[in-house]
Amino acid sequence: MKKLQIGVIGGGVAGLTAAFRLAKHDHQITIYDPSPATGASYAAAGMLAPASEVNFSEVPLLRLMEHSNELWPAFVREIEAVSGISVGLRLDGTLILGYEPNDGRDLEHMAEFQRELGIEVTRLTRSQVKALEPDLGGPFPFAALIRSDNQLDNRQLTNSIQVALDHLRVSVVRQSVKSVNLAGGTYRIVLDDGSEIRPDIVLLAAGSQVGSIAGLPKSVAGAIRPVKGQIIRVQAPSTTLLNRVVRSKTYGKTLYMVPRSNGEIVIGATQEEVGFNNTAKVRPIAEMLTNATLLLPGLGEADFKEHTVRFRPGSFDNSPIIGQYRNSNLYLCLGHFRHGILLSAAISKYVASAIETGKQPLEIKEFGADRLESS
Amino acid sequence: MKKLQIGVIGGGVAGLTAAFRLAKHDHQITIYDPSPATGASYAAAGMLAPASEVNFSEVPLLRLMEHSNELWPAFVREIEAVSGISVGLRLDGTLILGYEPNDGRDLEHMAEFQRELGIEVTRLTRSQVKALEPDLGGPFPFAALIRSDNQLDNRQLTNSIQVALDHLRVSVVRQSVKSVNLAGGTYRIVLDDGSEIRPDIVLLAAGSQVGSIAGLPKSVAGAIRPVKGQIIRVQAPSTTLLNRVVRSKTYGKTLYMVPRSNGEIVIGATQEEVGFNNTAKVRPIAEMLTNATLLLPGLGEADFKEHTVRFRPGSFDNSPIIGQYRNSNLYLCLGHFRHGILLSAAISKYVASAIETGKQPLEIKEFGADRLESS
Repeated sequence: MKKLQIGVIGGGVAGLTAAFRLAKHDHQITIYDPSPATGASYAAAGMLAPASEVNFSEVPLLRLMEHSNELWPAFVREIEAVSGISVGLRLDGTLILGYEPNDGRDLEHMAEFQRELGIEVTRLTRSQVKALEPDLGGPFPFAALIRSDNQLDNRQLTNSIQVALDHLRVSVVRQSVKSVNLAGGTYRIVLDDGSEIRPDIVLLAAGSQVGSIAGLPKSVAGAIRPVKGQIIRVQAPSTTLLNRVVRSKTYGKTLYMVPRSNGEIVIGATQEEVGFNNTAKVRPIAEMLTNATLLLPGLGEADFKEHTVRFRPGSFDNSPIIGQYRNSNLYLCLGHFRHGILLSAAISKYVASAIETGKQPLEIKEFGADRLESS
Repeated sequence: MKKLQIGVIGGGVAGLTAAFRLAKHDHQITIYDPSPATGASYAAAGMLAPASEVNFSEVPLLRLMEHSNELWPAFVREIEAVSGISVGLRLDGTLILGYEPNDGRDLEHMAEFQRELGIEVTRLTRSQVKALEPDLGGPFPFAALIRSDNQLDNRQLTNSIQVALDHLRVSVVRQSVKSVNLAGGTYRIVLDDGSEIRPDIVLLAAGSQVGSIAGLPKSVAGAIRPVKGQIIRVQAPSTTLLNRVVRSKTYGKTLYMVPRSNGEIVIGATQEEVGFNNTAKVRPIAEMLTNATLLLPGLGEADFKEHTVRFRPGSFDNSPIIGQYRNSNLYLCLGHFRHGILLSAAISKYVASAIETGKQPLEIKEFGADRLESS
């Protein structure tokens, strides 16, 4: 196989994982990002949760998410083998909780829908919930365990991959890409300092920032909108206050709590269509903290560590856009939306395959760049 | 009158206001503080609210607070005349709101107590509340206006005084005081860099930090404990969302909201006996924001700007300790507790008088340093 020079625009989880897959195949990779792993990948909670996310995805996307979820454990082993750094993968499952009777009914309907899609949802009795999570409040009118929905620590992941990429001799150029220009039938990268790079392949993985790059085809530059997320990190008074991911409805509001092994708990998240407005707002902070404390009273004594605002990359139909752009040397790896961490195991694999074979893999045939033309 | 060399230890509101009074009388003042106006004076809400604070003060202290409140407008004019910088004094009064019937009953009892003490509390009808503050939620089972409780902007105040002190040729030495040593019957100041200063008068206004200064008499060093406060600042979507200070009870929890003319609203505050633990906690943040949003729904769209933790200087009986220490050249200006901004107009005046006359003024006779001996 021909060894390619590949310029990856964007050092978030999409670009990093694709770079890892391609570097393992001995291609020569350079990542361009002024500040890798500090965007949506930094804010994320790291859930690998296709089942809990059924409401956010059409069936083809759900199937890709489930497939990616299955790929993650082996992909984690591959990354950790190169970097020597754990990504914090945990297979404790996800607890689904309804706080009020109405919340319970909503979640029962969702469970029916999940079962129709072949997802295993195990209802739990009060004593089973208490056995799993003694510090939860409740009782909860609805409680269930979804064993297939899990988590990794997204910050450990991007750290681990960056170390691995260093071992694999991937270069990282900490500059913004000013433009991607078509010249003589091929796309070139122009950096902020004016220097021009002519790789064999340009892989565009710029997340919500893609619109800020000049020169791209209009349909590409305009394909992605920023979807604001506000997310909170607290430090629990003990590392066993919560032992697995909780997703809940509380008075109609959804919430997740994702516990890390060091006692950090990630609480999230808003989803707001407000453009690049990065202010922290009073209402979501109040709601998230109040509802989290209703579910897990001991959280009231937790230390407030961090409120983060970042922007998910959402496409016109909230599905990813992956693959070759119009028989050119430009490949897209865009639009992961809410599912950047989860989807990256699969998307990195298949976008690498698309680059190497010049063909769109069957697994991502519904998510090709041809969708841009009809959108 | 003899012109004195005075070393002021501490550049919070207590030290700054005393320095201002003394500098106006042409004494030669040096303030020692590694970082002036960044402690409790920085966190404070700036309320001048003796009436609303009756639950936090015995009658003699209440009378001093009321007296200080009366001194503030003239003192503000004096400071602003020298600095040319507004301190943001506002005389809009304070609205007292009870959210639930139980909250209303509590506040009715407090209003009776306030009236017995001679404080004017004006009950308001719903339409009167709406006329004053159209954006408040409610209806509130209890609503009243206390015209005598007002506010200034504490950060503008300390800024304005610092500029004034510069005009008055007061020196500020940005170093910590390592120790205050008694030698030959007089107290001297030793700085972190080892240099020793021998002023005529040492004025100790070190707030919650007094215990960190070596060499002080034990009864002085141990007189003050830190009382943690967590306070929040948000930026309202409009400058007219709230037009005056609100103090409220919401499901038994007290809360205040102090609007600044630039649209900032200060929301507070906790009062915690936890030593110098400066972590932000989930529960108070959740409660303050949630309750504030219940009272003033438009606050949900406000930007979360700042969560601040600082330490009020509390004495053994939560009253200030002001005046000469045992016929020495050491003067105390300590223990302002919750009332540092409010009390400083009076305390600065009378501690200056004590220094100049060598006698404890009648207005602060109950708050002298002799209390240390019997404590």
